[in-house]
Amino acid sequence: MIGGTLDRTLIARLGIEVLEASGERVTARMPVDGNLQPYGVLHGGGTAALCETVGSIGASIAAPDRMAMGIELNVNHLRAVSGGSITAVGTPVHSGRTTAVWDMRVTDDDDRLIAVGRLTLAVREPPKG
Amino acid sequence: MIGGTLDRTLIARLGIEVLEASGERVTARMPVDGNLQPYGVLHGGGTAALCETVGSIGASIAAPDRMAMGIELNVNHLRAVSGGSITAVGTPVHSGRTTAVWDMRVTDDDDRLIAVGRLTLAVREPPKG
Amino acid sequence: MIGGTLDRTLIARLGIEVLEASGERVTARMPVDGNLQPYGVLHGGGTAALCETVGSIGASIAAPDRMAMGIELNVNHLRAVSGGSITAVGTPVHSGRTTAVWDMRVTDDDDRLIAVGRLTLAVREPPKG
Amino acid sequence: MIGGTLDRTLIARLGIEVLEASGERVTARMPVDGNLQPYGVLHGGGTAALCETVGSIGASIAAPDRMAMGIELNVNHLRAVSGGSITAVGTPVHSGRTTAVWDMRVTDDDDRLIAVGRLTLAVREPPKG
Repeated sequence: MIGGTLDRTLIARLGIEVLEASGERVTARMPVDGNLQPYGVLHGGGTAALCETVGSIGASIAAPDRMAMGIELNVNHLRAVSGGSITAVGTPVHSGRTTAVWDMRVTDDDDRLIAVGRLTLAVREPPKG
Repeated sequence: MIGGTLDRTLIARLGIEVLEASGERVTARMPVDGNLQPYGVLHGGGTAALCETVGSIGASIAAPDRMAMGIELNVNHLRAVSGGSITAVGTPVHSGRTTAVWDMRVTDDDDRLIAVGRLTLAVREPPKG
Repeated sequence: MIGGTLDRTLIARLGIEVLEASGERVTARMPVDGNLQPYGVLHGGGTAALCETVGSIGASIAAPDRMAMGIELNVNHLRAVSGGSITAVGTPVHSGRTTAVWDMRVTDDDDRLIAVGRLTLAVREPPKG
Repeated sequence: MIGGTLDRTLIARLGIEVLEASGERVTARMPVDGNLQPYGVLHGGGTAALCETVGSIGASIAAPDRMAMGIELNVNHLRAVSGGSITAVGTPVHSGRTTAVWDMRVTDDDDRLIAVGRLTLAVREPPKG
């Protein structure tokens, strides 16, 4: 049952909402509240999880017959956020036969850049059967 | 009320439990279940969030009169995990006056290395007042 | 004597030529020949050095009264190159009071993207005197 | 003629000397002089090139029948160096069938840690013929 599984996903927990998804562009939004550090600003790990989500979805769509797995993620945190939501837009830097690279730009509700990230993925044949 | 704030933290949501914390070493554990990708393995964003948590706690303890903020996180995902918990151990690579760097090693319950991460932090004077 | 020092720089050794430099954009070119791996393609370390050069120059120009020092560099190698030259274009992602982040895109002579890089810099007061 | 090719390598240009090389550990040294920034300290791009060299050699030895290509390099610069040489020691973090990850620690002649780096490599079947 997909629903049962989805309830146990990180995406559901963090409140990530995918607004747009293609092999050329993925946009997703995440609320700040609920994903805080103890002292009240967005936890950088939430930003990282949003970036990994966006890049993984995009690379998977771009390689429909294959399997894309994130192997390296990096994120630069540029600005603290204390409310509202953040939105990540991911675009492919590279879509190769065995690797893919996606760039993510993350903004707050005032369209200020709060982080950038890059995900390197291995693209493989899916397991048989 | 601290408790109210904590309920809204990413750390609480992901089920992260800090087992040990000093300026020389931080260990934290996170369950795999609840932090899944839709197809049933640990979401790499959970691993990233755990690494960012561990490095941030350690650098903050190591600089008690200052404020440590993660500015760059990178994580290598090495192995998929489908159950149990993962444990991250963070140690300082560098503790400077204005920057700090922490390395994290993440293992599963069978002590297999599933990820490594590195967090670069800016260390600053806290805001006055 | 500046000339004497320049002869001992990495930039001179690698044949890096800065084509354009401002606080908003830096372009530099490097020949492939001379910067090879033993088996005849461009050494990824050359690409990394070119990226670090471009970001450092840009961040230094953007903070004229301060000192910008690279603290974290990352580079994704996307495509092998065996001849001609490569060109890196750097642009600022973030120009803060104490940190800066620059993105670099590296192309070959046929304008194919061969690498992307990101440099995080600490921006400091220069030493007195 | 191998010699002719080697003269045109980045390794020769930067004066990199491989002191020890196995699939479990690679050590290489590079002089600071000649690899300077214009203002007289080691160029971070030199450190990056040394890290990429060490990781590439190690991963190639560890996968003798396959081909290892660096796909992502990251380096943290921790301390400026103005003379002598630097030494990088690389060890494998992961040696998989299709990917490898190597960690590098770089020290100066007084054994102070001046940088750490990590190289992610794709490991492939070599081209036929």
